[in-house]
Amino acid sequence: MNATPLWLQIDETHDPALQSWVASANDPATDFPIQNLPFGRFREPRDGDWRIGVAIGDQVLDLRRARLIDSADMNRLMRLAPEPRHALRLALSRGLREGSASQAAWTEALVPMSQVELGLPCQVGDYTDFYIGIHHATRVGRLFRPDNPLLPNYKWVPIGYHGRASSLIPSGQDFRRPNGQSMPPGATEPRFGPCQRLDHELELGVLIGRPNVMGEPIPIERAEEHVFGLTLFNDWSARDVQAWEYQPLGPFLSKNFASTLSPWVVTLEALAPFRQPFTRPEGDPAPLPYLDSAQQRASGAIDIGLEVHLQTAAMAERGQAPARIARSNFASAAYWTIAQLVAHHTVGGCNLQPGDLFGTGTLSGPGEGEGGSMLELTEGGKRALELPGGETRTFLQDGDTVILKARCERAGARAIGFGDCRSTVLPAPGLAPAAV
Amino acid sequence: MNATPLWLQIDETHDPALQSWVASANDPATDFPIQNLPFGRFREPRDGDWRIGVAIGDQVLDLRRARLIDSADMNRLMRLAPEPRHALRLALSRGLREGSASQAAWTEALVPMSQVELGLPCQVGDYTDFYIGIHHATRVGRLFRPDNPLLPNYKWVPIGYHGRASSLIPSGQDFRRPNGQSMPPGATEPRFGPCQRLDHELELGVLIGRPNVMGEPIPIERAEEHVFGLTLFNDWSARDVQAWEYQPLGPFLSKNFASTLSPWVVTLEALAPFRQPFTRPEGDPAPLPYLDSAQQRASGAIDIGLEVHLQTAAMAERGQAPARIARSNFASAAYWTIAQLVAHHTVGGCNLQPGDLFGTGTLSGPGEGEGGSMLELTEGGKRALELPGGETRTFLQDGDTVILKARCERAGARAIGFGDCRSTVLPAPGLAPAAV
Repeated sequence: MNATPLWLQIDETHDPALQSWVASANDPATDFPIQNLPFGRFREPRDGDWRIGVAIGDQVLDLRRARLIDSADMNRLMRLAPEPRHALRLALSRGLREGSASQAAWTEALVPMSQVELGLPCQVGDYTDFYIGIHHATRVGRLFRPDNPLLPNYKWVPIGYHGRASSLIPSGQDFRRPNGQSMPPGATEPRFGPCQRLDHELELGVLIGRPNVMGEPIPIERAEEHVFGLTLFNDWSARDVQAWEYQPLGPFLSKNFASTLSPWVVTLEALAPFRQPFTRPEGDPAPLPYLDSAQQRASGAIDIGLEVHLQTAAMAERGQAPARIARSNFASAAYWTIAQLVAHHTVGGCNLQPGDLFGTGTLSGPGEGEGGSMLELTEGGKRALELPGGETRTFLQDGDTVILKARCERAGARAIGFGDCRSTVLPAPGLAPAAV
Repeated sequence: MNATPLWLQIDETHDPALQSWVASANDPATDFPIQNLPFGRFREPRDGDWRIGVAIGDQVLDLRRARLIDSADMNRLMRLAPEPRHALRLALSRGLREGSASQAAWTEALVPMSQVELGLPCQVGDYTDFYIGIHHATRVGRLFRPDNPLLPNYKWVPIGYHGRASSLIPSGQDFRRPNGQSMPPGATEPRFGPCQRLDHELELGVLIGRPNVMGEPIPIERAEEHVFGLTLFNDWSARDVQAWEYQPLGPFLSKNFASTLSPWVVTLEALAPFRQPFTRPEGDPAPLPYLDSAQQRASGAIDIGLEVHLQTAAMAERGQAPARIARSNFASAAYWTIAQLVAHHTVGGCNLQPGDLFGTGTLSGPGEGEGGSMLELTEGGKRALELPGGETRTFLQDGDTVILKARCERAGARAIGFGDCRSTVLPAPGLAPAAV
């Protein structure tokens, strides 16, 4: 493993001077220039089946109509080996470039993004949520355990737990506030009703491509070979339910009512220009050997700027744009790398499958305005957040829309983005009639 | 909901006098008399595709060859409404009875069970593990928190967490001991290597049939309508890994390397004669209204006898039968009913899908020899278990085979069983070379 792996190589597809014959892809503000080429699933109105597309400017290229693939099965595409994946990216880049001979044929394969429904990017078999945001873990830990915010295992074990795959929803789909049990401070019996401390969590999603066989761990040197790409991910959380239910086996109903995934998978190849060395703060223990490699020390981190925007129902009614309430960066927020997550998840023999999803955990920065959840931004609900127009929030209200955004910007590279990850909170369903 | 639901009705299919033209089904010792009729998936050697079968004595009835269904998709069969499910059971019972006109045609649809491979009974989308065995929770809690074994939420919340679906294996498939991190007592750095406290867990699996829509909770009065049936379930656990990793988000690698499911799903209909009232110990809080109903108070519990057997490699070599190391009963072990699990899981809006699996959690009795795990039987490894032939065990060794069994026996009813749930522990894989 001395040669640079394909997904870390900077090649002609990353050339910042490249322009596309799809004019909107050349807009400096687009998330989807020709250097990005993220994969997703879409369908047109009255069209039942999902199809595989690539985002280019404000258009979607239908990969089957462009005769690049002959399947609509994203999970099958995700298991491609690095070489054919790289070849597909190269074909897409060359075909979409200004002056390409494919322009006439591929123009027929374009659909305006505004006219399609975007779904979950793939069928997610198993979903795991990690907890790699050390500033989030520290701030939240301080709320629960002021003297002992980070538990002793945090710097040794990439903490994670299994999540619920059935309630993953694509960006743009809304969800109902959950009902549930909580134990109010000082009470002797739990209350039941709509969640009173509903929160978002700013995360990235990691989608697995190539599988491993059960009982055969993936060594860290080969871990990224199993990663297809990244999305945005909002792990909605019912904090009052969570505080009451989570001992001793972890969060359950507080997390499984809905989680929103953005539709476009930004590949590791597209992220190659934004890699940087991964280091630990001085004095921290070195990772155990199965979590350490020269390659990830050299380029394990990815510089991805992250933002959270909030738009209340009143703001929407006034035509007021969503307000940015937080920003942070993946590289400085994460205590563990993606390769470490893959190596750790499989070290006991667990098998990963194409389409499996890892959430990173909330990616907060250390400073003011860098909390990836309301819990952090409002210090557990003690300090209300002021919004433009005079409203305030501690936790989320019905009608609130949360939008996550991500963008990679770096000198010498064309900026790329992830598109939006957005859902609106709907009122809780009425309570079931009391039992008789 | 005043009428008795179909799956609780005792009808002609439960008549203990019924005999089958499949002679082995009339053996008093069989788990699969004509009163049982559990569903599973099987394939013959060199036959790639799974087919749906019903166990009858030592035979499997191929449902498609018997022209009872036209699909091999178990998850589709599981979503049947109560009426067609009941009709299918009646057709099976009548066709397999002594003197049935179907005998000639259906004889062609029988395959000896010894000649087929039995798979997972369905495709499991999401798997949730509960913790409803109160004697297990108390004993294990005492090992971790001697003064405070049961946490304050235990009698209010059916504690559960999400598990890993990809590493579910069918009975008869073996698995490798996991490698992992643990923190030995008194150490300042974790060790990495093969698990040293490998354990089994005696559980039942609950398989979901009918789905619910996300955001629409299932009221407890209708909860059992969404349950297809029960299996045996062994939730293998790496106790040393678990103790080090589980704070604050719950078990992860300690549980996701393998979990064994028995192949035959015993339906709620077959279990109707073994229902009994569900009561809570005097002085315990009443369940919240969403977890309470008259019907479950009257018949929420199911009388299922449970056993754990262990056979070491040396015992197998000597031809010595597995030794029973524990027994208990579902009705007395469980603090929550299946209906309560369904109602709780969906109360926040989480959607269940056909084929979803709930593990009950370890179903231990309160007494000596009633622990459903080695952790309990050996008091955390402090007191070795003596096996016939002179061997002893604290935790499981390589080559050990654990077999779970379940059987319902009651005056006035024909006894039915679940078949075996069995796997053998294989040695851990070699450690990956150290990183450079």
